[in-house]
Amino acid sequence: MNLNFQTSPAHYRHWQLTFEGDIATLAMNVDGAGGLFEHYELKLNSYDLGVDIELADALERIVFEHPEVRCVVVTGGIDKVFCAGANINMLSTSTHAWKVNFCKYTNETRLYIEDYSENSGKRFLAALNGTASGGGYELALACDKIILVDDRNSAVSFPELPLLGVLPGTGGLTRIVDKRKIRRDLCDAFSAVAEGIKGKRAVEWDLVDATAPLSRWEESVSTMAREMADEVPDRSACKGIELTPIEVTETDAGLAWKYVTVTFEETPSGPGRMAQLTLDLPAEVGPTDAAAIHAEGADWWIFRMFRELNLALLDLRIKHPETGLVMTRVVGDPAVAMGIDAVLANPGADWFIHEVRHYLKRMLKRYENSAKSLYAVMDEGTAFVGTFYELALAGDRQYLLNDPEVPVTVGITEANAGWFPMANGLTRLQTRFLGAPERADEALAKAGLLDAETANELGLATFAPDDIDWEDELRLAIEERVSFSPDGLTGMEANLRFAGPETMETKIFGRLSAWQNWIFQRPNAAGERGALKCYGTPQAPEFDFMRT
Amino acid sequence: MNLNFQTSPAHYRHWQLTFEGDIATLAMNVDGAGGLFEHYELKLNSYDLGVDIELADALERIVFEHPEVRCVVVTGGIDKVFCAGANINMLSTSTHAWKVNFCKYTNETRLYIEDYSENSGKRFLAALNGTASGGGYELALACDKIILVDDRNSAVSFPELPLLGVLPGTGGLTRIVDKRKIRRDLCDAFSAVAEGIKGKRAVEWDLVDATAPLSRWEESVSTMAREMADEVPDRSACKGIELTPIEVTETDAGLAWKYVTVTFEETPSGPGRMAQLTLDLPAEVGPTDAAAIHAEGADWWIFRMFRELNLALLDLRIKHPETGLVMTRVVGDPAVAMGIDAVLANPGADWFIHEVRHYLKRMLKRYENSAKSLYAVMDEGTAFVGTFYELALAGDRQYLLNDPEVPVTVGITEANAGWFPMANGLTRLQTRFLGAPERADEALAKAGLLDAETANELGLATFAPDDIDWEDELRLAIEERVSFSPDGLTGMEANLRFAGPETMETKIFGRLSAWQNWIFQRPNAAGERGALKCYGTPQAPEFDFMRT
Repeated sequence: MNLNFQTSPAHYRHWQLTFEGDIATLAMNVDGAGGLFEHYELKLNSYDLGVDIELADALERIVFEHPEVRCVVVTGGIDKVFCAGANINMLSTSTHAWKVNFCKYTNETRLYIEDYSENSGKRFLAALNGTASGGGYELALACDKIILVDDRNSAVSFPELPLLGVLPGTGGLTRIVDKRKIRRDLCDAFSAVAEGIKGKRAVEWDLVDATAPLSRWEESVSTMAREMADEVPDRSACKGIELTPIEVTETDAGLAWKYVTVTFEETPSGPGRMAQLTLDLPAEVGPTDAAAIHAEGADWWIFRMFRELNLALLDLRIKHPETGLVMTRVVGDPAVAMGIDAVLANPGADWFIHEVRHYLKRMLKRYENSAKSLYAVMDEGTAFVGTFYELALAGDRQYLLNDPEVPVTVGITEANAGWFPMANGLTRLQTRFLGAPERADEALAKAGLLDAETANELGLATFAPDDIDWEDELRLAIEERVSFSPDGLTGMEANLRFAGPETMETKIFGRLSAWQNWIFQRPNAAGERGALKCYGTPQAPEFDFMRT
Repeated sequence: MNLNFQTSPAHYRHWQLTFEGDIATLAMNVDGAGGLFEHYELKLNSYDLGVDIELADALERIVFEHPEVRCVVVTGGIDKVFCAGANINMLSTSTHAWKVNFCKYTNETRLYIEDYSENSGKRFLAALNGTASGGGYELALACDKIILVDDRNSAVSFPELPLLGVLPGTGGLTRIVDKRKIRRDLCDAFSAVAEGIKGKRAVEWDLVDATAPLSRWEESVSTMAREMADEVPDRSACKGIELTPIEVTETDAGLAWKYVTVTFEETPSGPGRMAQLTLDLPAEVGPTDAAAIHAEGADWWIFRMFRELNLALLDLRIKHPETGLVMTRVVGDPAVAMGIDAVLANPGADWFIHEVRHYLKRMLKRYENSAKSLYAVMDEGTAFVGTFYELALAGDRQYLLNDPEVPVTVGITEANAGWFPMANGLTRLQTRFLGAPERADEALAKAGLLDAETANELGLATFAPDDIDWEDELRLAIEERVSFSPDGLTGMEANLRFAGPETMETKIFGRLSAWQNWIFQRPNAAGERGALKCYGTPQAPEFDFMRT
C-alpha cells in the first residue's frame, strides 16, 4: 500500500470532476481495481479510504480553485448505481484501528460538506441516479438536498444492521434523526429493511427530497441544481487559488515540511510513543493586503502551514498508531502570530482569506479529534498567540514555563473570540471556562501579548512550573501518559474534550462512533462467524443472541 | 447467586439508614462477605450490584416513607473510608453483559439522586469521612454538595485510567465536566492521578465544595446539612407511605405480578428471544381523592403497577439477556386509563401523587433505556391512553390494528404534554415530531380517546395494518427483529432513541457508557494481561500501545 493523502484531479481513479458555469458535478465512478489494498475489489461504487481521499481533495479544490461554484451535484457515474457504501471486504479484513480511522476520516469529510454549505457559499445536491446504500446514502445525507431516480428499482437503504450486524456509522443514524429529523420509529423501520425504500414512500418518509422519472432525470437534476445555486451569492468575479502539491522530507527522526515538523522520540514504554509536533512561524507577517495574498496563493504561509498540519495529523493518525502523545510547540516571534491574526481579521471580506480561516477551523477540529493525547508546550521561544493559542486550547493540557528569568509569551486575539468554533458550537475559551464564563471574558479583555505570569493568572495554562521544576515535570507527564492504557485514554479524551452543548457533529463522534467502535469489537460482527466476516461468503453468521 | 431486586432496611447488609428530624443519614458500611458472588470480598466499602440495590431501595424509601426528610447525608460507616468504588475483582471476573448492566443500574440510581434533588424536595450531602475513589467519588458527584475531611490523607480520586485502564464510567467523567463544569484540562490531570487530590487543592479545583478538619467534622457536616435542608420546603406535616413488598408468581411461561405479566416465547432464532410484557388495567379507576389514595398507599394500583414494571424490567435486563424483543400491551378499559390521568393531574398538589408521577417518569426512562427492542402492540382490548401511550412512544415502534371491524382505542391526555420528560429533556411527543413540532400540537389538541384511524392519521403509529395483514405483519416483524445482531440493535437503538438536545443524562448513557463498553471489550482492559485482570495480582498489565 502506497498511501498518499495528497492527490489531484489528474490522478483521480474514482471521481470525475467537471464544471459548467457555477455548477460542478462530482461523479463517482470507482475503479474496482483501484483499492488501496489488492485483496478486495471495489465493486458497485463501493469505497475505501483512497476513494475518500479523492473526494476530500475534490471538495477542497472546488472551494479554493473554483470559488465561482455555487452548487455541487454529487452523482454516480455508473448506470443504475449511485454508491454501495464502504467496501465490505475491506472492512471485514481490516484491523480494528484501520476501520476506526477510516470511519473517522469519512465522517470528517462529510461534515466538511456541511461546513462548505454553511460557510463557503456552496450547495450540495445528491443526485441519486441509482441505489444509494449504506455509506452511499450517508454521503447523500451530508448534502443539502437529495433527488432519487424513480425507475422502480433504485432505493435508498441502510443495510448495515440486517446484512452486516453493524451501524450506518459514518453519520447515518445521526443524520436521519437529527439533521432530517425523521420520526425515530420510521428510522428504526428504515434501518431494518436491507433493500431500502424507494419512490413515493422515500419522499413521504423524508428520506429524499424529490424523485424524478428516468425520462426527466437530467432535466430535473439541472433544474434543482440551478435553483439551489441561485440561493447563494454570486462569486463569478472571484478567481481561484491553485492548490499546489506539498513536498515532505523524511528524516531519520521523522517528517519535515516547510513549516511543520514531526519528530518521533523514544520513551520508557517504547520507541515513537511520543512525537514532537512543531509549527515554525516565518520571520515576517508577510503580505497584509488581499491582492498580495492572492499572488502568494497556496504559498501564503498561514494556509500552507495548516495544509502541512493536515498532512502531519493524517500521518500521525493512520501511519503512526504507536504514537500516543503529541507534544505541540509553536515556535517563532509572537509578533508574527499577532500580526497574522490582524490579516485574518479580513477587513475587506476577501473570499480567499475567509476560506483560509474556515480551513484553519477544520484543521483545529481535526487536531482535537485525533486519538492522541495532546499537550501544548509553552516554553522559551514559543508563540501561542491568537490562532496558535487555539492549538494549545484544543489539546488536553497546557504546560507553561513560568519563570521570571525566562521570557515566555502567550497571546489572546479576536481569533479566540469566535473564529474557530469547536464541534460543540462554542469557542475553545467558552468550553474551557464553561463553569465560569466571566473568566473567558477576562481573558478576551486582555487581548494582546501576555507574559507567562499574567497568562497563568488568567487560567490559560494547566500547569506553570518554574525553570527548576520544568524539565522534571514535563518528563514525568510524558512518562506517565505513555504508560497508560491507550484505549482508556481514547475514551477519556472523547468524554472530556467536548463539554457543554451537543451538536450533530459531537453526536457523530461521541455517540455514534463510540457504539460503532464497540460493535466493531464484538464477535457478532468481527468474529470468525460474525456478520461482517461472513458477508459475501456462503457461510451464514452465527450470533450469540445475548443482549448487552 | 440469589438476586432479588427487592429489599428493605431490616435486610440491609451494607447500609445504615437513620433519621433525625428532617435529616436522614445513609452510612455505607459494606459487609465484605456480603457480595452477590462468593469469589470476591467487598473490601474498603467497595460495591457490587447487591450494594447498589440496597442504595436504590433506601433512596426510594426516603422519598416515599419519609416525606419529611429534607437533606440526606451520604457518608462512610468505616473509619477513614468513604467508598472505594466498584469492586475490581467483581468487574474483572464478570461477563461483559454483567458489567454493562451493573454500570447501567448504578448510573440510573445516581441519576435518581439528582431527580430527587430536583423534584422531590431532598438535598444530598456527600460527607466524605475518608477517601472516595472511583465509583465512590462518582456517587459523591451525584449529590448536591460534597464535603471532604481534611485529615492529610483523605482524597477524592479517579484511579480507573491509571490503575485499571478503564473509565470513571458511572457518570464520573460527564459530571466533572458537565455538572461541576470543571476545566477540562484539570479534569484530565485529575483523572490521571491515582492517589487523587485532597485538601485545599480539591476545593480550588472545585472537586469538592468544602473541607473540614477531623476535630470539627461532625459539626461541619451537621451545619452544612442543616443549611441544605433549610433550602427546601417543610414537609413535616406529610405522613409517609410504606413500601410493602411485592410478590411474584413464577409460571411455566414466565412471571406474573398482580398487574404486570411477562411471558417468554419461542421464536425461529431460539426460545425466550421474545417476551410479551402485559400491563393489565383494573376494572375501575379507583380512589380519586388524596385521602383515599393515601389509605391505599403502596397498593394504589397505578403505583403498584409501575413498581411491578420496575421489577419486570430489571428481571428482563439482568436475568434474561437472551430476550431481545419485548412486545408490550396495555390491556383494559381505555376509560380507566383516561381516568387515572385525571387523578394524576393532582389538582390538590398532594405530595404522594406528585411522587408517584415522578416514579412513573423514572420507570418510563428505565424502560426505554433497556437494551431490548421494544414494540407496542395496539390491538383489540388494549388501552394505550395518556400515561400508557407514553409506554408506546418510549418503544421503537408502534403497531396499531386499524380495521373498521375491530375497535381499537388510543388516547392523548395532558400526561403526554410534559409529565414525563425523556432523558433529552423533551416530551416523547416532541421527540417523535422533532421535525414537525406542529404535529405534536395537533395530537395534543385531540386530547381524548381516539379510534385507530384517527390515531394513525395523527402519526401516532408506525404501522397500522388492517385485520387481514395484522398477524402476518407482526409475525414478520418479530422474526426479523430476533434474527438481527443483538449488538447492532443495541447500538442502533442507543442512537435513534434520543434525538434532539442532549443532557448530562443522555451523555452518560449515550457517550460515556458507549466508550466504557468499548473499553470493557478491549484486550488492554479485559484480556488475560489487561489492566482490569491484572489489578491486585503480582502481574503487571501488558498493553498493546497502538492508539485507536
